Amino acid sequence: MSPMSVPAPGQEAAQAASGQGPQPVFTEIDHVAIAVNDLPAAIDYYRETFGAVVDHREVVESDGVEEALLKVAESYIQLLTPTREDSPVAKYLERKGEGLHHIGYRVADCAAALEQVTSQGFRAIDAAPRPGSRGTTVAFLHPKDAFGTLIELVQE
Amino acid sequence: MSPMSVPAPGQEAAQAASGQGPQPVFTEIDHVAIAVNDLPAAIDYYRETFGAVVDHREVVESDGVEEALLKVAESYIQLLTPTREDSPVAKYLERKGEGLHHIGYRVADCAAALEQVTSQGFRAIDAAPRPGSRGTTVAFLHPKDAFGTLIELVQE
Repeated sequence: MSPMSVPAPGQEAAQAASGQGPQPVFTEIDHVAIAVNDLPAAIDYYRETFGAVVDHREVVESDGVEEALLKVAESYIQLLTPTREDSPVAKYLERKGEGLHHIGYRVADCAAALEQVTSQGFRAIDAAPRPGSRGTTVAFLHPKDAFGTLIELVQE
Repeated sequence: MSPMSVPAPGQEAAQAASGQGPQPVFTEIDHVAIAVNDLPAAIDYYRETFGAVVDHREVVESDGVEEALLKVAESYIQLLTPTREDSPVAKYLERKGEGLHHIGYRVADCAAALEQVTSQGFRAIDAAPRPGSRGTTVAFLHPKDAFGTLIELVQE
């Protein structure tokens, strides 16, 4: 069966244009984070299968993770593995197994974006922006208020 | 604690340059797909909180989903909801709840990319490319061979 198009409502765009809803906050999908048990094996898989190579690698002690960033256009695939047993990513792997962990959206101003979220009554995990990897400033939002998705706001 | 940099190995880039591993296959993160129970509510959330508005909306009968695409730079947030009980996305929501469902990578040639994957012994869900939404040609790979991630290859 071929896909069946439904007329776009147009309503959303009109509302945004008329001032309902803020100006666009996300400037780019910064990264898609994937939790894996074996980081070198995952790096090999992406290189050998898709020619996607490591652009940056970093241990983020505060989060208890080691990450490898593979660049795709202006975005990254972020392969994540825990560096200690009490890391949130270790707990995630234990509970849910390997796979998509969170999505990072690039924003111009992390503090302003975070304020916009919390001012609407949505919870954040980080009360204030904090350092992320590769010199970024980041804040995580609460997945329970974001339709099950762990969202990270990333300011370069 | 601040992030601690680890020297990038450089090995991967050198290997790719020297011909180990293919040329880059992914040209863009095409979309990040998020499974939700209430599509209109999720659309409202992204518009009101982040100013991300619907660019395209479509029912894909063959997949049993309705999707709304919100554009972020050259990528999309794809909000997905099932249109029938036997849809794979319905089963996913029942089993795992709302959240990140799959990632779509844009490729120049879906058939060639799929062949590259399967020629290395990795399984695909789609034996051959097929129509996706907004006139694309797509193929899904098997998550068990991709570190738990459901990957879609998307040719525009």
